[in-house]
Amino acid sequence: MNLLNEIYRTSLILLTDLYQLTMAYSLWKNKATQKEAVFHAYFRKTPFNSGYAISCGLSTIIDYLQNFRFEESDLAYLQELEGNDGSPLFESGFIDYLRTMEFDCDIDAIPEGTPVFPNQPLLRVKGPLLQCMILETAILNIINFQTLIATKAARIKEAAKDDLVLEFGLRRAQGIDGSISASKAAYIGGCDATSNVLAGKLFGIPVKGTHAHSWVMAHDNETEAFEAYAQAQPNNCTLLVDTYDTIEGVKHAIKIGLDLKQKGHRLAGIRLDSGDLAFLSIEARKLLDEAGLTDTTIVASNDLDEYLISSLKNEQDAAITVWGVGTRLATAHDQPALGGVYKLGCIRSSPTQEWLPKIKLSEQMIKVSIPGMQQVRRYTYDDGQYMADMIYNELQPLSKSSCIIDPNNAFRNKKISEETPYEDLLHPIFRNGKLVYQSPSIQESRERTKQELQKLHKGIKRLSNPHSYPVGLEENLHHLRVELIKVEGI
Amino acid sequence: MNLLNEIYRTSLILLTDLYQLTMAYSLWKNKATQKEAVFHAYFRKTPFNSGYAISCGLSTIIDYLQNFRFEESDLAYLQELEGNDGSPLFESGFIDYLRTMEFDCDIDAIPEGTPVFPNQPLLRVKGPLLQCMILETAILNIINFQTLIATKAARIKEAAKDDLVLEFGLRRAQGIDGSISASKAAYIGGCDATSNVLAGKLFGIPVKGTHAHSWVMAHDNETEAFEAYAQAQPNNCTLLVDTYDTIEGVKHAIKIGLDLKQKGHRLAGIRLDSGDLAFLSIEARKLLDEAGLTDTTIVASNDLDEYLISSLKNEQDAAITVWGVGTRLATAHDQPALGGVYKLGCIRSSPTQEWLPKIKLSEQMIKVSIPGMQQVRRYTYDDGQYMADMIYNELQPLSKSSCIIDPNNAFRNKKISEETPYEDLLHPIFRNGKLVYQSPSIQESRERTKQELQKLHKGIKRLSNPHSYPVGLEENLHHLRVELIKVEGI
Repeated sequence: MNLLNEIYRTSLILLTDLYQLTMAYSLWKNKATQKEAVFHAYFRKTPFNSGYAISCGLSTIIDYLQNFRFEESDLAYLQELEGNDGSPLFESGFIDYLRTMEFDCDIDAIPEGTPVFPNQPLLRVKGPLLQCMILETAILNIINFQTLIATKAARIKEAAKDDLVLEFGLRRAQGIDGSISASKAAYIGGCDATSNVLAGKLFGIPVKGTHAHSWVMAHDNETEAFEAYAQAQPNNCTLLVDTYDTIEGVKHAIKIGLDLKQKGHRLAGIRLDSGDLAFLSIEARKLLDEAGLTDTTIVASNDLDEYLISSLKNEQDAAITVWGVGTRLATAHDQPALGGVYKLGCIRSSPTQEWLPKIKLSEQMIKVSIPGMQQVRRYTYDDGQYMADMIYNELQPLSKSSCIIDPNNAFRNKKISEETPYEDLLHPIFRNGKLVYQSPSIQESRERTKQELQKLHKGIKRLSNPHSYPVGLEENLHHLRVELIKVEGI
Repeated sequence: MNLLNEIYRTSLILLTDLYQLTMAYSLWKNKATQKEAVFHAYFRKTPFNSGYAISCGLSTIIDYLQNFRFEESDLAYLQELEGNDGSPLFESGFIDYLRTMEFDCDIDAIPEGTPVFPNQPLLRVKGPLLQCMILETAILNIINFQTLIATKAARIKEAAKDDLVLEFGLRRAQGIDGSISASKAAYIGGCDATSNVLAGKLFGIPVKGTHAHSWVMAHDNETEAFEAYAQAQPNNCTLLVDTYDTIEGVKHAIKIGLDLKQKGHRLAGIRLDSGDLAFLSIEARKLLDEAGLTDTTIVASNDLDEYLISSLKNEQDAAITVWGVGTRLATAHDQPALGGVYKLGCIRSSPTQEWLPKIKLSEQMIKVSIPGMQQVRRYTYDDGQYMADMIYNELQPLSKSSCIIDPNNAFRNKKISEETPYEDLLHPIFRNGKLVYQSPSIQESRERTKQELQKLHKGIKRLSNPHSYPVGLEENLHHLRVELIKVEGI
């Protein structure tokens, strides 16, 4: 399925910062379109102080890149742009260059649903510098947001354990695609269903829902509203019980539940959307059980997140088994942006030249980039549990020591014995602009998240103050970086 | 221009919560499709503790509603959905009903670019309850996000005063439309330009940019990189000076600037993206001025928001006159969701019946809804400055007292003398499903924001602890609400 083609049938190649196009133009003017580069997209800090993040966004990026071409309306728009003296920003020769430009980069990426950590490339682009620039912004936009939400969802699912988590964020999400991409990423991260029907249609995510307060208000009283709903949908009946008085609402719902039972159906659930969720759920459970409605579940919603769910389950013994999570998931409310960056690793003046490694310095060590053409090797224990990740440079031989060095602190390093099993995480996605990767289904990506998270030590999955997973530079890459810092620092 | 048609050529009618459709189905099953309702979309608290918000999103909502119909693929998807016993969620008769359903609501709304306040309807929907339900979620999604961002932008522009503000948020925005809608709303709120080229193309927003660190890294040294850029774009040359050493970077840029000057061009600006922006900008200004480059501006970026800009300008005397604002604007980082709601005001069982006012109770007074079919009247002083807003019910006569009563505290009220000039804010947008409103251009909406904000007392525009603008209920509406609280509370 090609989502972007389906949702956005306009070309998305202009979904980029203007400076990418002015830099591309400057390359063209300087006759440097042969220049090639390797860029890596990565983040420096996990969101939410989480011990891990969940990679997400690749399938959307694939759709975007498969439509990476300028349409005539794009070119006409670019031709209208003016510089500060009123002359055209771009010469028509450049417009012609863009018209016939064909995407021919190599892209390697970590599959969706993989636990990932700071400093490691989630995606690597190798190809004409001019193209590497134009596609930077859209790739960051997609990967930053979807990785952020998949991570949030994984944390919420971790807190909810075996309970169902429903994503209800559409009405507060950041725009139309903010909601659709959030539903997708939340599902990959571990949510069980969404309320967003369009996301259900586009991705095959299960859709779930109850009813609104307005349903009750639109009837003469609560019982009448419940009856009307149950009669219409005996096979999908979860009643919202807090429009007026919650405990009274539960009692009204129980009447309906007994009635449904008699007719061979069942009251699937009741929903609490306000008040003291622990107290009310415990009381409601008692009333439901006493009435024999033991298979009616209790759904809760109302500004939930991983911390509140964990507290309700572990400290307050709430009788809730289905969690409707909206705003705080779909907007990643406590940290609404992942600061992923896209940095140059090496460059060459033409495809026949040698690669030259490159570094970006900063007064903050965390902002000093990593040079080279990077790959990530994940070492595992014999039982499959993750041990450590090594970032290495494909342009250098590997050191025999098998020692990895913390990129932010050279004093911290870790030896890895030679026979340790491993897997390289970056997979070939495009070669010379042609797709060579078979995208897994969204269900497979979701399953991957679940399986892979089981290989992560539980200390790393802790919601607060998690243990930090070791990610280091291969020794020769470390030395290369130190060397470049010296050279550029002079 | 029809944005949604252009960006999203798939039908968006399924951009709704499943429960809207199951409620619609229940109405149909209960033969209650004749029921009519009035709903109001409003927020209870301004975002960012701001003294005001800026309404935004209406033009997108108009596009959405002009395409409010089920396509065959939507219906096929709905027909596949199953209830918890595996039977179809929707009978085929309902699918047929949806197939021929025609949008025929009346919509009234406050134009984009208007300062708005808690509790007042930004948009009112009147029509078949079934349709009012289906369109709720998309309307909230659009209005919540765009109003949030327009408000953030207005605050940032307020802090920046006459300086230029450029929106650079695309790479960190929440999804593709999260960025496009953010660019649009930021422009309406007061930003001067965006880096997002697609938003520029779609909306005619001016596009601006400089160049990236990677441009410098991709050359042998900074001077060479600057020369290459300036040579290619003498009419659009703003140089990023902090890739290695900022002050050295400024000196390299000055060389280029002098060269451009000699050739009859000019160095438009330099950009600082890290470090102590106050110190560096003051030093850079000195160096530029000493070199005679007095018309080269200093652009700053790096996690800016209204507070930082205000501090840099007012407390630190930074020599910055162009502000590039990204993540914190495009995601409304300190409060990434506006909690706008959509509540039932009145109902009738068919178009020929009397309207019945409705209320939603809550233990928190702020969450008790306002009944009726509401309109907002804005009173002004003789010089045009805003005085107070009155929410009144079009189904009740107005009291002669002209007294407005705070909806959250009946002790607070304000008399308004009879001859006070006023304007009603909700304008007719759709009548019986037909568009009757001529949308202003985005430039006109941006100008409206600017003009209208000048009518707001500066205490209300203060960034922190603003003065609160009086919004009250008309006296008869207040009495109706008190009456309904008594009745429903029993």
